[in-house]
Amino acid sequence: MMLRPCFVFFFFFTNLLIFSQVLEASRCSITGLPLVRKISELPQDNYGRGGLSHITVAGSLLHGLKEVEVWLQTFAPGSRTPIHRHSCEEVFVVLKGSGTLFLASSSHKYPGKPEEHFIFSNSTFHIPVNDVHQVWNTNEHEDLQMLVIISRPPVKVFIYEDWSMPHTAAKLKFPYYWDEQCFQDDQKDEL
Amino acid sequence: MMLRPCFVFFFFFTNLLIFSQVLEASRCSITGLPLVRKISELPQDNYGRGGLSHITVAGSLLHGLKEVEVWLQTFAPGSRTPIHRHSCEEVFVVLKGSGTLFLASSSHKYPGKPEEHFIFSNSTFHIPVNDVHQVWNTNEHEDLQMLVIISRPPVKVFIYEDWSMPHTAAKLKFPYYWDEQCFQDDQKDEL
Repeated sequence: MMLRPCFVFFFFFTNLLIFSQVLEASRCSITGLPLVRKISELPQDNYGRGGLSHITVAGSLLHGLKEVEVWLQTFAPGSRTPIHRHSCEEVFVVLKGSGTLFLASSSHKYPGKPEEHFIFSNSTFHIPVNDVHQVWNTNEHEDLQMLVIISRPPVKVFIYEDWSMPHTAAKLKFPYYWDEQCFQDDQKDEL
Repeated sequence: MMLRPCFVFFFFFTNLLIFSQVLEASRCSITGLPLVRKISELPQDNYGRGGLSHITVAGSLLHGLKEVEVWLQTFAPGSRTPIHRHSCEEVFVVLKGSGTLFLASSSHKYPGKPEEHFIFSNSTFHIPVNDVHQVWNTNEHEDLQMLVIISRPPVKVFIYEDWSMPHTAAKLKFPYYWDEQCFQDDQKDEL
């Protein structure tokens, strides 16, 4: 039986499409991970930030979540997040150590002098949407370990050099734990 | 100076409105809680379920969150959630103990025989949206303690009597940690 050229072309094209989608899925989406996962065996990275250990416990990239993301972050003594804001909800649960939360409102032209809040093991706090904040391990003797929960992943972070920088000058940074190309493909319309 | 009747009426009416809104706020919304809270001092309840301790670590009712909610739940040996589903994302982080997750798809007319997954301290898992599930402390010797994260609070739960009950027969239950009146006022249009 002879195959018609149009059928051969259709067959070839369909397979190419499926193959490219599989490649795309393995690069940017859910992979064949077990449902129940040991947190100690999940990949961790510092994404170029000294003193940070970041583990995505459950997230959009690896696990296909669309509405929440959960991280386990550990900050060595003296290390800290950048001064930043984002338009999602964020909840912290402090598992170990202590430190300082710096928090400023987004209702003026620039953050201004932040409030300082002591944070400690077995405490919880949340960041109001778009409020500018920084978490700092100010305890010289112990790591600060926290579960961090955000809504609407992937988080789009605006970074400030200092507390007097105008909100309009804060620089959008792609999430440091996120593959930039995937982010651009999937989310650029939202920016 | 005489006050005009319309001004008196306006003044009275405005104050009445503000007073009723304050009452409403104190009943159903954010109260003057500290930003950083000790988890051990947060209210806990079992909401009529034997063996359960439920603490809302961060939530919509007390803390004004709209996109995520975080609970700390402890199940005594032998205790369990009902068989249920909900149309939000849910992530579990097991802090202590071990147990069994029963999970069935929502793609047939009824859940059917569920998959069984062993869950254990320092493990994590998430429930696909609308999949029917039950978490059971099947460890006779130890409490099962978990942080539970849900999206889009308050969660609307559909309860099953058993795994052969049709999805259409599952019964909507108001969240057991939620004030039913507030739920009805705020969310009834979404049902």
